[in-house]
Amino acid sequence: MKQVVFDAPGGPEVLSLREVPIPDPKPGEVLVRVVGAGVNRPDILQRSGLYPPPPGASPHLGLEVSGYVEQVSDASSGFKVGQAVCALVSGGGYAEYLCIPAQQLMRVPKGLSVLHAAALPETCMTVWSNVFERCALAPHETFLVHAGASSIGLTAIAMAKAHGATVAATVSNQEKALACVQAGADHVFFYTESDWAQKIAVDLPNIDVILDFVAGSNLDKNLNLLAVEGRLCIIAQLSGRVAELDMGKLMMRRLTVTGSTLRARSAAYKVHLSLVLQERVWPLVEAGLFTPCVHQVFPFEQVRQAHEVLESRANIGKVLLSFADEKECS
Amino acid sequence: MKQVVFDAPGGPEVLSLREVPIPDPKPGEVLVRVVGAGVNRPDILQRSGLYPPPPGASPHLGLEVSGYVEQVSDASSGFKVGQAVCALVSGGGYAEYLCIPAQQLMRVPKGLSVLHAAALPETCMTVWSNVFERCALAPHETFLVHAGASSIGLTAIAMAKAHGATVAATVSNQEKALACVQAGADHVFFYTESDWAQKIAVDLPNIDVILDFVAGSNLDKNLNLLAVEGRLCIIAQLSGRVAELDMGKLMMRRLTVTGSTLRARSAAYKVHLSLVLQERVWPLVEAGLFTPCVHQVFPFEQVRQAHEVLESRANIGKVLLSFADEKECS
Repeated sequence: MKQVVFDAPGGPEVLSLREVPIPDPKPGEVLVRVVGAGVNRPDILQRSGLYPPPPGASPHLGLEVSGYVEQVSDASSGFKVGQAVCALVSGGGYAEYLCIPAQQLMRVPKGLSVLHAAALPETCMTVWSNVFERCALAPHETFLVHAGASSIGLTAIAMAKAHGATVAATVSNQEKALACVQAGADHVFFYTESDWAQKIAVDLPNIDVILDFVAGSNLDKNLNLLAVEGRLCIIAQLSGRVAELDMGKLMMRRLTVTGSTLRARSAAYKVHLSLVLQERVWPLVEAGLFTPCVHQVFPFEQVRQAHEVLESRANIGKVLLSFADEKECS
Repeated sequence: MKQVVFDAPGGPEVLSLREVPIPDPKPGEVLVRVVGAGVNRPDILQRSGLYPPPPGASPHLGLEVSGYVEQVSDASSGFKVGQAVCALVSGGGYAEYLCIPAQQLMRVPKGLSVLHAAALPETCMTVWSNVFERCALAPHETFLVHAGASSIGLTAIAMAKAHGATVAATVSNQEKALACVQAGADHVFFYTESDWAQKIAVDLPNIDVILDFVAGSNLDKNLNLLAVEGRLCIIAQLSGRVAELDMGKLMMRRLTVTGSTLRARSAAYKVHLSLVLQERVWPLVEAGLFTPCVHQVFPFEQVRQAHEVLESRANIGKVLLSFADEKECS
C-alpha cells in the first residue's frame, strides 16, 4: 500500500509517498481500507516539526479517516467486513490501509458519503469535548466561535445552533461570513476590522461561551465579551501563547478560562467521545441539521497541495485526501 | 442601639460609634439582637474606600453576624423569638441590632457558642461556593490553599479534609503552620521561602484544586503545580490583579482558571448556600470535624483594634466583634 511520509521536518515539499506492507490487525483491531482522510492543523505542525506525536502514537500523519472494514482480527469487534466506518486515530491516517482499535470505530451517518465522513471525527470530537462537555453550553445561552469558517468553526456553529443556542462567529471575509450563516450562525463579525470586539459587545454584550483558536491578542477582548459566569475555551494559539490576564475581571464576573487538546486525551476518553458522537451528533447529520462542510478533496498523491491550502487559511471547512473511490470499495 | 460608622474612608481611626434607632423588621425580615460579628477583609477594603458596597446593600460595615431572634415580622418566617441564629448579611453587621431576611438565617450548630457562630457564614460560604461548587473538589483529590492560617484558609483545610481530600497549605510562620496542621492539613509549606513552589512540586506534583488569595505573582507558579484537569480559583488579589497567563499550559494540561466574589452573588444564591451549609457543613461542626478558629474577640467598642489586627495579617483564624454577652441574651 501507499503511505504519505516525511523524513525530516519542513514545508509541504518534504511530503512524499512510500510503498509499505499492508499492516496486520492485532487483537482488538480492525484493518480499514481508507477512503478519505482529514487534513488538520496538527498535521501541519507535526510536518513542520512543531508538534511531535505523543509517546506510543504513530509517527505518521493523519488523525481521522473514513473507509471500509477490510479485515477483522476477531469476531468480537462488532464490525463486519465491508462495513462503512470513520474514526479518530492516533496517527497514520494518510495511508491506503490502517489498523484501528475496534472500539474507536464509528458508523457512518446515514445519507452521508463515506468520503465526507472523514471530515467528522476530529472536528466533532473537538467541538463536543470543548463546547458541550468542558464549557457546558446550555440551550438558552449565547455562543461565539472565532475563525468561524474553519472546519471546527462551522461544526461548532451547526452543533451549537442545533442545541438551541444563539450563535455568533468571527471571520475574515464575506465568503466565509456566508458559510457561517449557512451553517447556522445568527451573527457574523469581521475580525479584520480593528474594532471587532466593540462591535460584538454592542450586539451581544453577554456571551456565555467562547471557543477560541487565537489566544494571545484575543484574551482580554474575549474576557470583556463574556457574561457573568462566562466560559472561554482556548484550543489553539494562532497569535501566541502568553498574554496578560486580568484576574479582577475573572473574580468580578466569575469567569472561567480553560483549554484543551484532543490528541493528548486517553484512549478511553476518545472511545467515550465516539459513543457520544454516534448518539448525539450523527442524528443531527441524518436529520439534515448539520452537514460537514468540505472545502476541497485532493487525491492523496496531491497531499502537498492539500497542506498548502490549509496553510494559506483560504479554506472554508475541511480539506480531505481521497485514497480510494468509495463506489469501487463498497 | 449602637452602630459602627465611618463618615469618610481612611484608616482604622475613621471608625466610630453612633447611637441610632433600632430598626423595624419589614415583611419577611427578622430583627436579630447581635451577639457576634465577623471582621473580614472586605470590611477593611470598604473602610479604606476601595470596595464600595453593591447597589442596594447597606452602606455600613459587617457581612456576617450571630445572635438571637428579637422580633419576627410575621409568623411565616419559621423562626421564634429567642432562637439562636447566624447569617451572612449584605452589610450593617457591626451593630447591636440588625434586620435580616428570614430566608438568610441559619441555625447555630449544636455545641458551638453563639458568639463563635459569627465566624461561620462568610468563610464557610466562600469555601463551599469556590472549592466544592466552582472547583468540584473530589474526595480522592489533592487540594492546596494559600494563606492557610487565614479564616478562610483554616475553614478550607478542615472542610477539604473532612471531604476526604489530601490537603496542603502555605503559611508565613511556624505558629500558622501548626494551626493548619491542627485544622487538618497533611502538608504545610512556607511561602516566605523563595523556592516554595519548587518544594511543593517535589512533595505534591499534581494538585487538583488551588484556592488562591494572592493572584499576581502566584499565577504561573499555581499553574505549574496543577495536575492535568486542575482548577485554580482566585478569590482575592493580594499581589495584584494582572499577570501573564501561559495559555499553552492551560491547553496541554487542560487547566481551568476561575474566580469569584461572594458579595456580588444574588440573594437567591446566598439562600441556597445557607441551606447547603446547614445540611453539609453544620454536621461536621457538630461531629467535631471542624471547629471555627477564632483568633481574638474584641468588644465592639474596640473595633479599631480589631481592624488593626486583621490588617497586620497576624491573625490565625477569625477576628470577631462582641456586641452582647450571649448568656445575658439567651
